[in-house]
Amino acid sequence: MYRSHTCGELNASYINKEVVLAGWVQKSRDKGFMIWVDLRDRYGITQLIFDEERTSKAIFQEAKLLGREFVIQVTGKVIERTSKNPNIPTGDIEILVSKLTILNKAQLPPFTIEDQTDGGEELRMKFRYLDIRRNPVKNSLIFRHKVAQAVRNYLSKEGFIEVETPYLIKSTPEGARDFVVPSRMNAGQFYALPQSPQTFKQLLMVGGMDKYFQIVKCFRDEDLRADRQPEFTQIDCEMAFVEQEDILNAFEGLTRHLLKEINGVEVDKFPRMLYDDAMRLYGNDKPDIRFGMQFGELNAVAQHKDFGVFNTAELVVGIAVPGGNSFTRKEIDQLIDWVKRPQIGALGMVYCRCNEDGTFKSSVDKFYDETDLAKWAEITGAKPGDLICVLSGETNKVRTQLSALRMELATRLGLRKPNEFAPLWVIDFPLLEWDEETNRYHAMHHPFTSPKPGQLELLATNPGAVKANAYDLVLNGNEIGGGSIRIHDKKTQSLMFDYLGFTPEEAKAQFGFLMDAFQYGAPPHGGIAFGLDRLVAILAGQEIIRDFIAFPKNNAGRDVMIDAPAPLDDKQLEELSLKLNIKS
Amino acid sequence: MYRSHTCGELNASYINKEVVLAGWVQKSRDKGFMIWVDLRDRYGITQLIFDEERTSKAIFQEAKLLGREFVIQVTGKVIERTSKNPNIPTGDIEILVSKLTILNKAQLPPFTIEDQTDGGEELRMKFRYLDIRRNPVKNSLIFRHKVAQAVRNYLSKEGFIEVETPYLIKSTPEGARDFVVPSRMNAGQFYALPQSPQTFKQLLMVGGMDKYFQIVKCFRDEDLRADRQPEFTQIDCEMAFVEQEDILNAFEGLTRHLLKEINGVEVDKFPRMLYDDAMRLYGNDKPDIRFGMQFGELNAVAQHKDFGVFNTAELVVGIAVPGGNSFTRKEIDQLIDWVKRPQIGALGMVYCRCNEDGTFKSSVDKFYDETDLAKWAEITGAKPGDLICVLSGETNKVRTQLSALRMELATRLGLRKPNEFAPLWVIDFPLLEWDEETNRYHAMHHPFTSPKPGQLELLATNPGAVKANAYDLVLNGNEIGGGSIRIHDKKTQSLMFDYLGFTPEEAKAQFGFLMDAFQYGAPPHGGIAFGLDRLVAILAGQEIIRDFIAFPKNNAGRDVMIDAPAPLDDKQLEELSLKLNIKS
Repeated sequence: MYRSHTCGELNASYINKEVVLAGWVQKSRDKGFMIWVDLRDRYGITQLIFDEERTSKAIFQEAKLLGREFVIQVTGKVIERTSKNPNIPTGDIEILVSKLTILNKAQLPPFTIEDQTDGGEELRMKFRYLDIRRNPVKNSLIFRHKVAQAVRNYLSKEGFIEVETPYLIKSTPEGARDFVVPSRMNAGQFYALPQSPQTFKQLLMVGGMDKYFQIVKCFRDEDLRADRQPEFTQIDCEMAFVEQEDILNAFEGLTRHLLKEINGVEVDKFPRMLYDDAMRLYGNDKPDIRFGMQFGELNAVAQHKDFGVFNTAELVVGIAVPGGNSFTRKEIDQLIDWVKRPQIGALGMVYCRCNEDGTFKSSVDKFYDETDLAKWAEITGAKPGDLICVLSGETNKVRTQLSALRMELATRLGLRKPNEFAPLWVIDFPLLEWDEETNRYHAMHHPFTSPKPGQLELLATNPGAVKANAYDLVLNGNEIGGGSIRIHDKKTQSLMFDYLGFTPEEAKAQFGFLMDAFQYGAPPHGGIAFGLDRLVAILAGQEIIRDFIAFPKNNAGRDVMIDAPAPLDDKQLEELSLKLNIKS
Repeated sequence: MYRSHTCGELNASYINKEVVLAGWVQKSRDKGFMIWVDLRDRYGITQLIFDEERTSKAIFQEAKLLGREFVIQVTGKVIERTSKNPNIPTGDIEILVSKLTILNKAQLPPFTIEDQTDGGEELRMKFRYLDIRRNPVKNSLIFRHKVAQAVRNYLSKEGFIEVETPYLIKSTPEGARDFVVPSRMNAGQFYALPQSPQTFKQLLMVGGMDKYFQIVKCFRDEDLRADRQPEFTQIDCEMAFVEQEDILNAFEGLTRHLLKEINGVEVDKFPRMLYDDAMRLYGNDKPDIRFGMQFGELNAVAQHKDFGVFNTAELVVGIAVPGGNSFTRKEIDQLIDWVKRPQIGALGMVYCRCNEDGTFKSSVDKFYDETDLAKWAEITGAKPGDLICVLSGETNKVRTQLSALRMELATRLGLRKPNEFAPLWVIDFPLLEWDEETNRYHAMHHPFTSPKPGQLELLATNPGAVKANAYDLVLNGNEIGGGSIRIHDKKTQSLMFDYLGFTPEEAKAQFGFLMDAFQYGAPPHGGIAFGLDRLVAILAGQEIIRDFIAFPKNNAGRDVMIDAPAPLDDKQLEELSLKLNIKS
C-alpha cells in the first residue's frame, strides 16, 4: 500500500492520526527553517510541513531538494494548520512529515501544471500526459465519464441493450470518406472503419433486439477543420416498432435526465420547430433559442423603393439587436467590417437605430422614411433602444450570414449563457440536398431515411421538396443529435438508391445484405445518434471539444505525442500486398 | 405508438383489457374454424386467437395467410385461455384479435427461428440478423450487456474513470501483428489499430488519472484459429501508486462482484498459485481447479528400472483418474489413441489400475511390482478404484500433453460443471520467454512489465529465470485476465528494450514518448486487462465466444453477412497513395 489516504480527504477530524500519502509536488515554499510542500493527486492537494525543529535533519535536507512534479510518498501526523485555507477541503490541516520517499524524480515540465498554464496548444498536445495533470483537463475527462455513465444507466433502465457492433466493416462510397484497413489474409481487399454503426443497428432491429444503444467510436477521413477529429464518439441508438413521436419522447427523456443529473437543471417539454421555420427564422437548422433576435423578412416592405441593392436581392432580412442603439458609430462600422470578412462574405450591412423616443435613423435614410422603418421594426420585433441589422442577397447565403451575425452579437451581448440550456427539436428535414460538386442529389441524413408518408411520389417530380422523417436535437445552437425513421422495405430502399444514383448492381454490392434483411420480416424502426464529444462539452458549458478528449489529434490528423501516423517498414507493406504510390 | 404492451408482459390481471401488440409470427396453427398464432418479440411470446365466430371474416381470412416471421400489429382483447401453458409468463391468457395489420411480410427464413435450429454455422453467420432472433443468441447478447453494465457500475463506484483512448495510433513491431490504416493526409504513412491501449493507460497514470478503466475494442492481425476474432473486447484497467497486492485485491473484488451479481454465487478469497507450481501440478498456466487430478512427478520412483521409455525421459508424470478403474480395456485403448492423435502428440500412455482391494495392475507390470506401483499411487494421490495415467518425455511437451488429457478426462467425467466457479490467481510469471522462431527472448507479458524486485541483475546471467510482477486471473481453466506492475523509470525501461533486442534508435522511435513521460514524474503503477468476450461466455457457463458477439467474423477473418473485406476502387487507392502488390 503506497498510501493510507488520498490528498483530497483529510480534514480536522483526522488530527493526530498518522497517515501515508503519495502524489506529486505541486509546489514548495522554503522559508529556511520551515518548508511547506503542496502534495497533489487526482483527489486534491494536502499541505506537508517540514520543520527544522520537529523534522529529522536528513528528511529536512531531502525536502529542500524536492522539485516540482517529483513523485513522493510521505508518512506523517495530521496537525492543525496555523493559517487555514478555507478554499480547499483539506485547508484546516497539514501533515508533519516523519518519513519521505522520493518515488520518482521529475524534470522541469515544459509548461506549468496550473489551471492557467503558460503552455501553448501544440506543446500541451505533445506532452498531453502532463496537460492531463491540470485540473481543467482532468476534470473534463472525469466529467465525460460521468455523462457517459449517466447515459448508460438511463438507457439500460429504459430497456435498451448496449450491443457492440464491428469495427472492421465494408467501405461504402456514400457519405464521407472511409478510413480503410488492408486485409493481410485477403490480399487486395480492405475493411473500412465505421462512419457509424448505421446498417448494423438496423440489422439488430431486424433481429428483434427492439431497443439498442452503443457508445461507440466512429471514423471519418475528412479534411480536418478546427475542432473536428478523425475519430469521434457517438451515442448510437435505435428502436423498433416506433414512429417519430416515440423516438422524440424517448430521447427527450434521456436529454432531460442528463440536464437534471449532470447540471441540476429542470427543463420543460422541448419545443419543436420545422426545419423550414428554423431556416426562415434563424437562418440555420440548429438555432440557439436561449435568446430571441428572430429574423424578419423585409422584402415586402423594403423592396420596390429606390434602393437597388435590396430591389435586386432574393431576400432582404433583418434582426433587432436588443439595446443595440447604444452602439457607437465606430462599433457599428466594426460590425459591418465583421460581416464583410471573407469567412462571412456579406457585401455590406444596412442598419437602423431605433431611438428611445420612437423615431428611427437608418443608414439608408435616403430611400426609407419613418413609416418604412417602423414597418422594419414591427417585422423584426425591434423596440426603442434596439438596432436593426439588415442583410440582403441570395436567400441561402444571406441567411447563413445573418445567422453568423446573430450569434456573434449574442456572444458579445452575453446572451449565450453557458449555464442556461435551451433544447429544441428541429423536425421535417428535407430528404435530399443538392450537391453542387457532384451535380446530383445526396441524402441529407443518409440513404436509409424514410420520406414523410405520401411524399415518395414527389421524388420523381420535385425531389428537393420531399421532406423526411428526420429530426435533429439542438442544444444552445449546437446539433447534439440527429436521426430518422428508416425505410424498412426493400422496394422503397431500392427506389432511394436509384434516386441517389446507385446502379442496381452497386446498390446490391454495397447494401444487398440490408435489402435482403428487409425481406425476412423487418419491423418499422428508427433511431438517433448523439455526438458525445460535443454533448459533453456543451453540458460543461464549453465549446472546445478537444478538451474533453483524452488524446486528441491535431488539425492535420496527427497525434503529436506518439508521432502517428508513421511510415511502415517494407516487410509490413509486402505482407499486406501493398506498395506505396506517392506522387511527388 | 405501434403497441400498448410487449409480448412478454400480459397475464391474467389484464383480462378484458384491450391491447395493441406488435411482433413476429413465431408459428400459426390453423384448425379450420380457429387459428392460433404465437406472436413473438424480444420480451416473450403471446398467443393470438382468431375465431370464425368471434373474428370478422376479413381478418380471419387474412390471418390464414400469415407466414412465419411476418411482422404484424394486432389489436384485441385479453381473454383467459382454455388450455393454459404454465411454462411461459403469458400462458394464462390469449388475445382475441379484432384488428390485424401486416407491417411487413417475410420470406421463409433459411433456417428455423427456434432454440434448436436446423441452420449450419456459415448460414447462420450470413443471416446473423435472423440468428439474433433466436433465444440463445439474443439472450447471450443481453447477458453480455448486463455483464458490461455491472463492470462499469462497480468500477465507477470504486473510483475508476472510464477514459476513451484513441483507435488511430502507431504501429509497433513488438507483439502480434497490427492492423494498419493508411493516412490520406500524410501520404505513405499509416496509423495502427491498438492491440491494447497499453501505453495510453500508462500515460494516463503519468497524467495523474489514478484509476482508469475502459471497455474497449482491440485488434490483432493474427492467423485465426477457431474462436479467435481479429477484433475483440477488453476490460482494460490501470491504477497508480499500487503494488501487486493492491491490484489483486481490487480485481478480485470486481470478479467476486460479477459472480455474485450475475451468477448469484459467493466465492471465498481467491487462491493464488505460483506460475512454476501451476506448470508442475497442472501442466499449464491456467489450471482448472474445479477438480483435482494434480500431476504427480514419478521420475524418482519410475526411472532406473528396466523400462527404457521412462529411463530416457526428461519427465515421467501421471494423474489419478477418479473412478477410472471402471474403464474397460477398450475405453483405455481409446484414451491411448486419443493422446496419440497429432493434436496431442504423445507417443503412448502407461496406465495402472488401482483395484478396490488395494492391488495394482499396470500396463508395465513387466518392469514394476506392487511396491513400485503403490508409490505411483501415493504420489498421484490415487485411491482404490482410480486409474493412473502416465506420460513421459520432454518436460514442456509432456506437461502440455498430460494437461490436455486431464481436461479431456474431466470433461468426460462431468467434473467441469458449468455452474461451479473456481477462480485462481496465477502469479510470478517469467519475465521473458524464449522464442524458437526468432531465436531470442520475447517479453512474456509485454515489454512494460517490471521484473520482481532485485531480479533485474539476473537478466544478464540467466534471463529465463527472471520472474515478473505479472499475474493472470484464471476462471475454470480459462485465462480471463492478465496484467502486471509496470516499469515506471526510464533506465529500467531502456534496459528492457535493450534485452528485447531493440536498438536505442528503435526504442526511441517506437516508445520514446513513454520513456520521455517517465522523466516527468511517473508514479508506480500497474494494471490488468480482462477479455470480455471470454469472460462473458464463461460466466454464462459456455465456451463458444462467438455466440456472445453480435456480428462475429469467420475463421478467415471475413464478415460473411456484409461480405467484408472487399476490394477498393482505384480512386480510393490513389487517394491513399497506394498500389496493390499482389504476388500470384
